[in-house]
Amino acid sequence: MELPSKLLENAVNEMSQLPGIGKRTALRLVLHLLKQPVEQTEELTTALENMRKDIQFCKKCHTISDAEVCIICSNPARDKSIICVVEDVRDVMAIENTNMFKGVYHVLGGKISPIEGVGPSQLKITSLVEKVKEGTISEIIFALSSTMEGDTTNFYIYKQIKEYQIKTSTIARGIAVGDELEYADEVTLGRSLLNRIPFETSIKQ
Amino acid sequence: MELPSKLLENAVNEMSQLPGIGKRTALRLVLHLLKQPVEQTEELTTALENMRKDIQFCKKCHTISDAEVCIICSNPARDKSIICVVEDVRDVMAIENTNMFKGVYHVLGGKISPIEGVGPSQLKITSLVEKVKEGTISEIIFALSSTMEGDTTNFYIYKQIKEYQIKTSTIARGIAVGDELEYADEVTLGRSLLNRIPFETSIKQ
Repeated sequence: MELPSKLLENAVNEMSQLPGIGKRTALRLVLHLLKQPVEQTEELTTALENMRKDIQFCKKCHTISDAEVCIICSNPARDKSIICVVEDVRDVMAIENTNMFKGVYHVLGGKISPIEGVGPSQLKITSLVEKVKEGTISEIIFALSSTMEGDTTNFYIYKQIKEYQIKTSTIARGIAVGDELEYADEVTLGRSLLNRIPFETSIKQ
Repeated sequence: MELPSKLLENAVNEMSQLPGIGKRTALRLVLHLLKQPVEQTEELTTALENMRKDIQFCKKCHTISDAEVCIICSNPARDKSIICVVEDVRDVMAIENTNMFKGVYHVLGGKISPIEGVGPSQLKITSLVEKVKEGTISEIIFALSSTMEGDTTNFYIYKQIKEYQIKTSTIARGIAVGDELEYADEVTLGRSLLNRIPFETSIKQ
């Protein structure tokens, strides 16, 4: 794609570095900015720069935060002995939306993925093991996505903490609420049969 | 969607002002920037700011250009008496890629669209009519998209230039090369029959 202007080309190239944004989409976005008042571009770039430079991560759970300790970790009503291990802040937001979890989180910042060049040392695994070593944790809940990378990461962490003999669990895999059985894949359906729960329990939920 | 940080929220809000980018996609893009080195965000914001502030539009055809007059308008080999009227720079690029057009362009900057609040005064129509008035133009080719807005814009311009009795044409509508007849809509198929061309002409193309 040959562009008539170097300035336009630079903007399109930078924009298309973002995931899921190809050159054509980047051009559409950049041309949109050109049609808008110059202030809109300034507000966008200022917001991105401020965020990238000033954002902090909670020193306890590593989630994105505006303070040293995030609002979840600093909330006295949350049970600090139950830790839910998640990949990133979007998973924290998703679980918080359910209003079902009253423990705290530990944000790994990704999953072990040799293909994408992500090894255990790039994730916040050591600090999780440290927390377990301190002896105040009663349960670790693994809530990574159910992929090969997620399972590998779960197992890597499990191997390091099993000697401390605390309770470990993983979120249930099964048929999503509202889904038709016939469209479920066989692994999910199989697991949901193996891990069936008492009917009395289910009607109370 | 409740975000755990004001800085993150501002960045997501600004990003989701772009067309086709919802809050969820904006969050994904912004979290990607957070995982990359700070330089990537700086390069993106600098490229966008420079483009928005310093970009020029060709004073002859209004396309995006790094100079006062674009490379097409300043090329002595191009026929300045044939003007192809298009919506934006992407159409110029698309037509240039065909290598079939040796005239020059006139970029309107949009189409007349009451729904989106775009009236004739926001488009570069006056300067096109001025060019025609000067008497050096032999043909105007309308190459706007074949929508109600495109047809309205064509007709609006046509009414203003018809008194000067220059040749006006519109690009052919028909079955795309490689397309199956049975999947064509009836308007396109009907027009392609009405505007059929001699077979001898078609085999030479």
